[in-house]
Amino acid sequence: MRFLRYGALGEEKPGVLDKDGKIRDLSAVMSDLSGAYLANLSSIDPERLPLVSGDPRIGPPVGHLGKLVCIGLNYTDHAEELGMPFPDHPVVFMKATSAIIGPNDTVRLPRGSTHGDWEIELGIVIGKPASYVSEDAALDHVAGYTIVNDVSERRFQMELSGQWTKGKSCDTFAPIGPWLVTPDEVGDVQNLSLSLDLNGERMQTGSTSKMIFSVAHIISHLSELMTLHPGDVIATGTPPGVGMGQTPKRFLSEGDVMELAIEHLGQQRLPVARMP
Amino acid sequence: MRFLRYGALGEEKPGVLDKDGKIRDLSAVMSDLSGAYLANLSSIDPERLPLVSGDPRIGPPVGHLGKLVCIGLNYTDHAEELGMPFPDHPVVFMKATSAIIGPNDTVRLPRGSTHGDWEIELGIVIGKPASYVSEDAALDHVAGYTIVNDVSERRFQMELSGQWTKGKSCDTFAPIGPWLVTPDEVGDVQNLSLSLDLNGERMQTGSTSKMIFSVAHIISHLSELMTLHPGDVIATGTPPGVGMGQTPKRFLSEGDVMELAIEHLGQQRLPVARMP
Repeated sequence: MRFLRYGALGEEKPGVLDKDGKIRDLSAVMSDLSGAYLANLSSIDPERLPLVSGDPRIGPPVGHLGKLVCIGLNYTDHAEELGMPFPDHPVVFMKATSAIIGPNDTVRLPRGSTHGDWEIELGIVIGKPASYVSEDAALDHVAGYTIVNDVSERRFQMELSGQWTKGKSCDTFAPIGPWLVTPDEVGDVQNLSLSLDLNGERMQTGSTSKMIFSVAHIISHLSELMTLHPGDVIATGTPPGVGMGQTPKRFLSEGDVMELAIEHLGQQRLPVARMP
Repeated sequence: MRFLRYGALGEEKPGVLDKDGKIRDLSAVMSDLSGAYLANLSSIDPERLPLVSGDPRIGPPVGHLGKLVCIGLNYTDHAEELGMPFPDHPVVFMKATSAIIGPNDTVRLPRGSTHGDWEIELGIVIGKPASYVSEDAALDHVAGYTIVNDVSERRFQMELSGQWTKGKSCDTFAPIGPWLVTPDEVGDVQNLSLSLDLNGERMQTGSTSKMIFSVAHIISHLSELMTLHPGDVIATGTPPGVGMGQTPKRFLSEGDVMELAIEHLGQQRLPVARMP
């Protein structure tokens, strides 16, 4: 099933798509797509829920995230593009949850931004608490998958005395969605195609088959560092084709439009503007 | 005034100390010490609130934190201790909010931990949203100050392919409290003494007068990277005397007790155990 949150920013309601792709209102079943509700999504029957009228804004598909954990340098072909050696363990950093927006909202470059960049990533939504979980059991802790754009300001990330989080946490730098798609509809999570277009031109093309560390490995590794809680989101790294990997390098400008797609997970369409 | 949260883990209620240092129950005034309530703390009169009986556990003094932002290498004498150059800008990383515990709870070393370390830090609690705030106006956005122990696992931090957050985000690695102390009771925030004892032996001694980047500068700088929201906590870096700065190096063991104090902000007493 495909779950989503709809409505004005900060006032999103939980919903689910029915067999015709129309939004059904989940409010009578759960207060939000968050926390413990994420462990029981398979029990829901969309066809019995009320239809939502109109064409509401789509928000991020998870509410009240505890943490947004990101993996760096996780695609063999992206590491090669940057001329970086493959890491021995997953590279981990955090994005501030205050950066999260919906899948079609406006990305706003912060004041002083000269090196805004894009990164399409497969996002994992945790459904059940995970602490010291083996790789074999890791996928049992997943509520579903989504798209994350790990928008980055490379100058803030690289030249402001560190760490990476400085260029990753700006407001609007974490578009998530459109949907939380349950694992049964995703199939083999290590064989999904990803793409990102800038103003209609293909920039990133990739496949989750090129991950250095698999989804299961990432969950297991993180669960040895910290407990993953329901509603936590993990962005699993980006394939080649980021702006700083282009020749010549290319960065975001006001008026650009990013379009992202992952097989089975839908699409994002993100206009780019500047912070006032 | 000194605000606090008391009660069982995850069920903490808001409270405030009266003139005799006794806990008064704030539940009738606010649902929690969090979010928008943090902007109006000065309007509260503790003496009119009901006394809390018994000797409850003290929790972290802020609820529903959005983010726990940390500054690295921010004391001149700590940078010298490590032989590191002073950074040009504040070094920023995040701790997972799932690491937060109360000021007298048990710190649990994760499995495989061999290099657990301590870091006493002045914590800033944000009271009003801060975006592109000047250094002059920065302190107007502070609800109060508290103690943060930025507990760290140096092997996880340094040897697991990065970034620092890997050694900073383990469960129980962010003891906060005991109190949120309003700025009027703190006085000059750039002239507070800090200390940390391990098993009764003084390890860290410092003064916030040795900060490379002041509290006001940190808030202003962060507010150019991301919006700071009410309830966000910023840990402002540690003075000299961490375990990896000792000769020989010294790290945490099961059975150790850390005792932390900052002038006007109270004390923490943290027993150390191991994750089962």
